[in-house]
Amino acid sequence: MLVEPIDAPAGRQQRRKPTIRDVAAASGVSRGTVSRVINGGHWVSPEAREKVDKAIETTGYYANTHARSLATGRSDSVAFLLTEPQHLLFADPTFALLLRGAAEALAARRKTLVLLVAGTPEERENVSHFVGAGHVDGVLLISSHEKDPLLDSLIAAGVPTVACGVPLGHQDDVITVSIDEVGSARTAARHLAGLGRERIAMIAGPEDTPGGRFRVVGFQEELGERFDADRVERGDYSHESGAAAMAALLARDPDIDAVFAASDRMAAGAIATLRAAGRSVPDDVAVVGFDDSGLAASVDPPLTTMHQPFDEISAEMVRLLLDAIAGKDPASVTLPASLVTRASA
Amino acid sequence: MLVEPIDAPAGRQQRRKPTIRDVAAASGVSRGTVSRVINGGHWVSPEAREKVDKAIETTGYYANTHARSLATGRSDSVAFLLTEPQHLLFADPTFALLLRGAAEALAARRKTLVLLVAGTPEERENVSHFVGAGHVDGVLLISSHEKDPLLDSLIAAGVPTVACGVPLGHQDDVITVSIDEVGSARTAARHLAGLGRERIAMIAGPEDTPGGRFRVVGFQEELGERFDADRVERGDYSHESGAAAMAALLARDPDIDAVFAASDRMAAGAIATLRAAGRSVPDDVAVVGFDDSGLAASVDPPLTTMHQPFDEISAEMVRLLLDAIAGKDPASVTLPASLVTRASA
Repeated sequence: MLVEPIDAPAGRQQRRKPTIRDVAAASGVSRGTVSRVINGGHWVSPEAREKVDKAIETTGYYANTHARSLATGRSDSVAFLLTEPQHLLFADPTFALLLRGAAEALAARRKTLVLLVAGTPEERENVSHFVGAGHVDGVLLISSHEKDPLLDSLIAAGVPTVACGVPLGHQDDVITVSIDEVGSARTAARHLAGLGRERIAMIAGPEDTPGGRFRVVGFQEELGERFDADRVERGDYSHESGAAAMAALLARDPDIDAVFAASDRMAAGAIATLRAAGRSVPDDVAVVGFDDSGLAASVDPPLTTMHQPFDEISAEMVRLLLDAIAGKDPASVTLPASLVTRASA
Repeated sequence: MLVEPIDAPAGRQQRRKPTIRDVAAASGVSRGTVSRVINGGHWVSPEAREKVDKAIETTGYYANTHARSLATGRSDSVAFLLTEPQHLLFADPTFALLLRGAAEALAARRKTLVLLVAGTPEERENVSHFVGAGHVDGVLLISSHEKDPLLDSLIAAGVPTVACGVPLGHQDDVITVSIDEVGSARTAARHLAGLGRERIAMIAGPEDTPGGRFRVVGFQEELGERFDADRVERGDYSHESGAAAMAALLARDPDIDAVFAASDRMAAGAIATLRAAGRSVPDDVAVVGFDDSGLAASVDPPLTTMHQPFDEISAEMVRLLLDAIAGKDPASVTLPASLVTRASA
């Protein structure tokens, strides 16, 4: 439904609202062709589609929402839903990478990316209503903590959803694109052990996130008998939390000679603490990060880290979500992360 | 309209979809009251509304989109529409400040903020359709260049729109919240002249943006006969463009003793160039920036800059837009920017 003009004194918005007839006239094709383009583009030649798209732009035509929604049942948009406080969108570089990849994949399929942030209870409630009301066709769920009530709502409402990472507590309820968390952590630990390091610590993520939980599992599996639970601290993926965790680890064991941090930001924080404590990286303490988010290369020393294939993750999320919206039942996908060796380990 | 569950093998999504009857039972109020809450909350006591809201959450109830849209004509959401390439959302700190303010103001009014990025022709077209189809009630237009075709579309479709800054070519067509561009630039120039500087240069923004055009007007007005067009260069608000503009200015006049940059990022770039050219700031060259975006305080030396009241700008944009959506005809607002003195000038 089009909202009425907000104000139309003389001289403003005198134009008649364009109709499908105007678009047909401007594009030189039949009204039926225009209608088919508007309703999804089936049975239309690329040339005709291009003409109609151009005419839609020049005439300023808009399809009637309700008529269009009823015809196709679609809004042709997908939510990129971040269930974290908004400032993290800017503080955590991994979100920008996923957003860029998703925006590109969606633009190529002529879908609108709608970014929704639900970091507070009020925002979660508002977003629930917006999504449940059908203003988007599906949801790319970015970051989710265990027992996230928003995910419950999405599942209850039957909104097609693809989660980034396996949401704890909902392993079997949603389609996921995740990296091999256990295998990645094993690779990182194996690299540090291979350097001859013997007192290897870990700075893990929050226990209610899949990365926080399963990377510890892989770390422990790889170190076997050499694993020491006292050498594990948790942060919240931020720089500050990595710095604090490193300080706690050093206080318990000043002879730590390596640390695996579950995010590049925590690795950078750990390096700051190590430097303040007079330890050199990598000579005294080798450091491996996680993400390879762009921050990694600019840290001093540049971080050896586990590279997450963000472009592939976002492209796969979009592919699976559009399949789900189309009524298919796509299987979840697990992607490998690879070790990128720089100077820190 | 609710989309059907994407897949429902045994064990998944066995729950019956909750109805208005379930919400009424859970909240202990009548179905009529529930319906009134869902349709905008008129004639409902705050206590009843709270009970119903809580019951909506616990039951996982969603209003039927079309029924709801037809009843209220509203999606209860507002677009934060950025018509710049997506990477600028992360590179330019002013967008994050406006986004935070708008999100807070909207959450307080129980509206959903929908972030849309239209930086490419495809994205502009997709966003035009999404907005024109009524999935948002109105648009907060962030950053707009002259002759922006998207703004033409919004105006033609009669979508309530409030622009941040006066969009060139559409001065009389949309409601705006802007700062006093001319007055702010006069203040900056007056400060530099008051320090006894005599060869004052300016790094302006793009000519097709209001900040790019009108800050030069104020700068010229204030300097009067001392104004020299050869001492004006243009950038695109980025750090790199500020560095390049400063180099061009120094090449033309090595004796420049002050520079006013139309963004803090350009001021930081100018300082980098000045330092590389052996000039000290502020002793050899005094520098005034624009925005006071958080970057300003962390530049070396900390920037003297024109403070934009971002919280007030976003709060006013939300207030005017909601008024416009409610059918009122709010007047545009101009806010003052104030000089913040730090070390660079």
